[in-house]
Amino acid sequence: MAEAEIARGLEGVVFTETELSFIDGQNGRLYYLGYPIQELAEHSSFEEVSYLLLHKRLPTADELAVFKEKLVKNRSIAVEKVASFADYPRTAHPMASLRTAISELGLFDPTEEDTSFESLYEKSVSLISKFATVTAAIKRLREGHMPIEPDPELSHAANFYYMLNGKRPSPEQEKLLDVALILHAEHGMNASTFTALAVHSTASDIYSSIVAAVGALKGPRHGGANEQVMKMVQEIGKPEAARGWVQGKLANKERIMGMGHRVYKALDPRAVILKKYAEIVAKAHGKSTEYEILTIVEEEAGKVLNPRGIYPNVDFYSGVVYSDLGIPTEFFTPVFAVARISGWTAHILEYARMDNRLLRPKAKFVGELDRKYVPIDQR
Amino acid sequence: MAEAEIARGLEGVVFTETELSFIDGQNGRLYYLGYPIQELAEHSSFEEVSYLLLHKRLPTADELAVFKEKLVKNRSIAVEKVASFADYPRTAHPMASLRTAISELGLFDPTEEDTSFESLYEKSVSLISKFATVTAAIKRLREGHMPIEPDPELSHAANFYYMLNGKRPSPEQEKLLDVALILHAEHGMNASTFTALAVHSTASDIYSSIVAAVGALKGPRHGGANEQVMKMVQEIGKPEAARGWVQGKLANKERIMGMGHRVYKALDPRAVILKKYAEIVAKAHGKSTEYEILTIVEEEAGKVLNPRGIYPNVDFYSGVVYSDLGIPTEFFTPVFAVARISGWTAHILEYARMDNRLLRPKAKFVGELDRKYVPIDQR
Repeated sequence: MAEAEIARGLEGVVFTETELSFIDGQNGRLYYLGYPIQELAEHSSFEEVSYLLLHKRLPTADELAVFKEKLVKNRSIAVEKVASFADYPRTAHPMASLRTAISELGLFDPTEEDTSFESLYEKSVSLISKFATVTAAIKRLREGHMPIEPDPELSHAANFYYMLNGKRPSPEQEKLLDVALILHAEHGMNASTFTALAVHSTASDIYSSIVAAVGALKGPRHGGANEQVMKMVQEIGKPEAARGWVQGKLANKERIMGMGHRVYKALDPRAVILKKYAEIVAKAHGKSTEYEILTIVEEEAGKVLNPRGIYPNVDFYSGVVYSDLGIPTEFFTPVFAVARISGWTAHILEYARMDNRLLRPKAKFVGELDRKYVPIDQR
Repeated sequence: MAEAEIARGLEGVVFTETELSFIDGQNGRLYYLGYPIQELAEHSSFEEVSYLLLHKRLPTADELAVFKEKLVKNRSIAVEKVASFADYPRTAHPMASLRTAISELGLFDPTEEDTSFESLYEKSVSLISKFATVTAAIKRLREGHMPIEPDPELSHAANFYYMLNGKRPSPEQEKLLDVALILHAEHGMNASTFTALAVHSTASDIYSSIVAAVGALKGPRHGGANEQVMKMVQEIGKPEAARGWVQGKLANKERIMGMGHRVYKALDPRAVILKKYAEIVAKAHGKSTEYEILTIVEEEAGKVLNPRGIYPNVDFYSGVVYSDLGIPTEFFTPVFAVARISGWTAHILEYARMDNRLLRPKAKFVGELDRKYVPIDQR
C-alpha cells in the first residue's frame, strides 16, 4: 500500500491469518474451525466449543472430561475478592465493573507476569470459567444479594444460570443459555478481539489484553445492539400494539432494531438457532409478553424487509432470550463477554503461535512543521 | 490493498491523520504540533505541552493559568479510593496496579458514560493530573508509607516529585523531571496510543481506552527498555569496570542497551536534551555512580557504534535520570505513563474530531470448511 493511501478504520486491511471462524455472509453461514454453527449448537456444549477454539480441534471424551474439570476448579474466586466487588457503585455500567474486576483478578494473580504459552493457556481456561462467576457476582451484589457460590455438579451454562438467579435452570433453560453462549463465543476479527491482540502484541500479560477487550466490547458501536431491541420491545409494550408500531416505523422509513446485518445478507444463522431454542423454552414455561411482541414484529416487518434481504440478526432474539433467562438489560453486554472470552483467548493463543508481530500502524502527519516557539507574554 | 496481501503487524499501513507529532528519524528531529522538541523542553512546561497537545495550539498566558488551575484542582483523589490502593499486592507489577486504579477511577466517576466531546476533554485533563497522583500513591504504599497529598502551590513536575519522595525538589531536579515528562508526552502512533484509539473507536468511555493503553504500555516490547539499561548499569557495578565491560560486549557483537533506535538513525534528540538537564542536576547535587557509569558506556561504545549511525536513545538516559530523581526501576514504566497520558488523551480527542471510524481490520481465513461434527464417542 502506498503511504499516501489512508485505510480509514483499517477497513479491508488484512493483518494476520486465522483458522478460528469463517463467516459466509452471502449464504448466511458461520463456522468455528470449519464446523457449521448449527451442528455445534445442536450437539456440542459451551465447554466443548471453548476447547475447540483453544485447541483448534474437538476433544476426545477423556480430553473433554479433563477440560471440564479444569473449568469447574477455576470457577471459584477467593471470597475476599468477591466481597470487595460489593464496594463497586451500583449505578456504574456493569461493564466498568467487569473491566475493573478482571483487572483486579490479574493484579492478585501471582503468575500474571508469566507470558509463556503454557501459562497463557492456563489463564485462558481460568478466565473462561471466571468470567461467569464475576459477572454473576456483580449482578447479585447490584441487586443487594450475596453472590452465590458455584455448584461443581452443574454444567458451565447451568451453573452460570444458577449463580445469576439463585435457582437451577430447567433442562430447556440450560440448553437455551448454553446455545446462546456457543453462538456468541466467536465471530472473527471484531473490534474487541482486535484490541485484545493489539495489547497482546506488546508482550503484555493476558489480563491486560482481556481488560482492554472488555473496554472495547463496552462501546455501543460493538456490544449493546440487543439492548436497543429490548428498548424497542418495551416501547411497543403489548402484543396488540406491535403490528401498528411496525407499520408506523416502516411508513416513516425508520430502522427496526435487530433487523439487518453488516455482514449477513441472508438470514443470520445465529438468529435462526436462537429462535428455535427460545421456542422450546416458550413451550415449556409459557411465552413471555416480550417474546410474543418480538415474533409479531418479525412477521410484520418481514413482509416488507425480507424481500429486500433484511432479516432478523442474532441481536433481535438474544435480548429477549436473556430477559427470559432472568438477565436484566444492563447485563446483556457482560453476558456477551462471558461467551466471547473463549474467542478472545483463542485468538490470543492463535496469534501467539502464528504471527505474534507488534501491531503498530501509522498515522499520516498533516500538520505544520518548524513553527517558532513564541514566549507566552508575546502571544 | 488486495485482500490476499497480509500487512503483518499492520506495518506501513496508514489508517488516519494526525497533527500532533512528527518524527524525522533521518535527521534526529521530533516536533509536537510543529514545534521542535528542543524549544519545548527549554522554554515550556509539561502543563503547557499538555495544553498544546489537547488544543493543538499554544495557550495565551490567561489560558495557561486557567488550564494549570484545572490540573491542580484535579490532582486530589478521594481519600477512601487512595486508601483502597493499599489493598493492592505489593509484589504485583506496578503497571497492573496502575491499570486497576485507573479502571477504578472510571468505575467511581458518575460521568464515566458521558462520551460527549466536552466530557472527553474534561476527563482528559483530569486523567493527565491524576496519573501522577495515582502513580505516586501506589509507589508510597508499596514502600509501606502513606500517600502524600498533592501540594497546590507546586508545578505538575515538582508536585509529582514531592508526592513520590516526600520532599520538594531542587529547581534543577524539578526542571529535569519536567523535561523528562515533556519528552515522553507524545511520540506518534505507537502501540499504546493505537490501542487507546481502537477502544475509543467503539464509542466506549475514555477510561476504558486509557486502561487499555496502560495494558499495552506494560508490554516489554513497548515500555520497559529503560529498565534494561538500568540492569546493564547495575551489572557493570562501578565506573572503573565500564570500559572493559563495553569492550567485551562489542567484541562479542552483543547489543548495548539503549544504543540505537528503530526510527532515529541520527542522535535521538530526546537523549541529547535529557543528558543536558541531567548534567545540570549532576553539577548541583553531585554525580551518581550510575550516571558516571552511563557516560563512560556512552563514550566507549560510541567510538565503535557512532560511525555506524548508532547513538544513545532516550531510554539510555531516562532510567538513570529517574533513578537519580528517586524513582525505583519498577516504576519507570508507570512514570512513562504519567507523561504519555497527555499524548493518549490528545490522540483520542483528535480522532474524535478528525475521523472517528470504528477500527476493524481483518484476518484471512486459512482453515478448513464444512467439517463434519463427529459425536464424541466416535472420535
